[in-house]
Amino acid sequence: MSTTRWLNENEQGAWRAWLEVMRLLPNHLEDRLHERHDLTLTDYQVLVEVSESAEHRLRMTELSHRTQLSKSRLSHQIGRMERAGLVVRTQCPDDRRGQWAELTEQGWTVLREAAPGHVSDVRELFFDILDEQQVAALAAGLRAVADKIGMNPATGCANARAEMVERNGAEGACPDSANPDGD
Amino acid sequence: MSTTRWLNENEQGAWRAWLEVMRLLPNHLEDRLHERHDLTLTDYQVLVEVSESAEHRLRMTELSHRTQLSKSRLSHQIGRMERAGLVVRTQCPDDRRGQWAELTEQGWTVLREAAPGHVSDVRELFFDILDEQQVAALAAGLRAVADKIGMNPATGCANARAEMVERNGAEGACPDSANPDGD
Repeated sequence: MSTTRWLNENEQGAWRAWLEVMRLLPNHLEDRLHERHDLTLTDYQVLVEVSESAEHRLRMTELSHRTQLSKSRLSHQIGRMERAGLVVRTQCPDDRRGQWAELTEQGWTVLREAAPGHVSDVRELFFDILDEQQVAALAAGLRAVADKIGMNPATGCANARAEMVERNGAEGACPDSANPDGD
Repeated sequence: MSTTRWLNENEQGAWRAWLEVMRLLPNHLEDRLHERHDLTLTDYQVLVEVSESAEHRLRMTELSHRTQLSKSRLSHQIGRMERAGLVVRTQCPDDRRGQWAELTEQGWTVLREAAPGHVSDVRELFFDILDEQQVAALAAGLRAVADKIGMNPATGCANARAEMVERNGAEGACPDSANPDGD
């Protein structure tokens, strides 16, 4: 006699599909990013997070929170990106123990070059396959899951600030009112 | 003048939520699996895949495909599970170069012990947060995405065959007609 609430057919279908996409999609996206721009998905995420922050810089502690990388893994990650010329570490003047990761001119250029292709990949491998109702359900459902698990919501904007610049040269946060068919 | 089809508001919401859950959920599930049963999520997946195969064994090439682990990473993974007594590698008699990963009695016991708790975690951190329509949209949408990316659909059944045994002692494939509220 068991009290386990096993997954039903629909749930199993959803869970298997979730696991498969989770295993496959990042690899595909990263392969393309890497081939075209020598970036990993984590590089891209760091560039996006930093570029969306005031003055193109973000505290390492906040970056660690947003990327879900441990302090030591993030330090390794940022060291690698520093050597590639994409970011620099600077000291927070008001907190001697605090460090920022700051976007370089080159990092900003690389992000602006990479963003259109990455968004196009995300579209091809994800959104173009989903209908509007599925996108809405994913957005609402996964937002609820993410909030339950307790994550900061301000992460992972695929568009990157490159969109703002491409559109009108403005500095700004990741735009929420973007026109998907803009040209 | 750009032809980039930037993500619209709904798509950005869905994509951010996707990235967050993808980053957070596996860690949470794995922490619990590890704490209770000293298993990683990949260990669990391998146990499920092998247990669902005929005679509790699966060709390494097929397992590599299903887990999306490279040949060398899978070899390392299976070596670790062999040392833990969960699986053994055996030679395919009809193909001298072929190898199987085969479930041990202990591996089967561990999977049966771990499955109810894991399914309960998946429920708590995922399905219990979603409504029926969201589950259906996830199942259909992510299945289409997985198929487009080209994955074998027969992976990642959270229930594991432990369900079959718990219910009626039968051997069988991961059941699709399970009663979620069974007790």
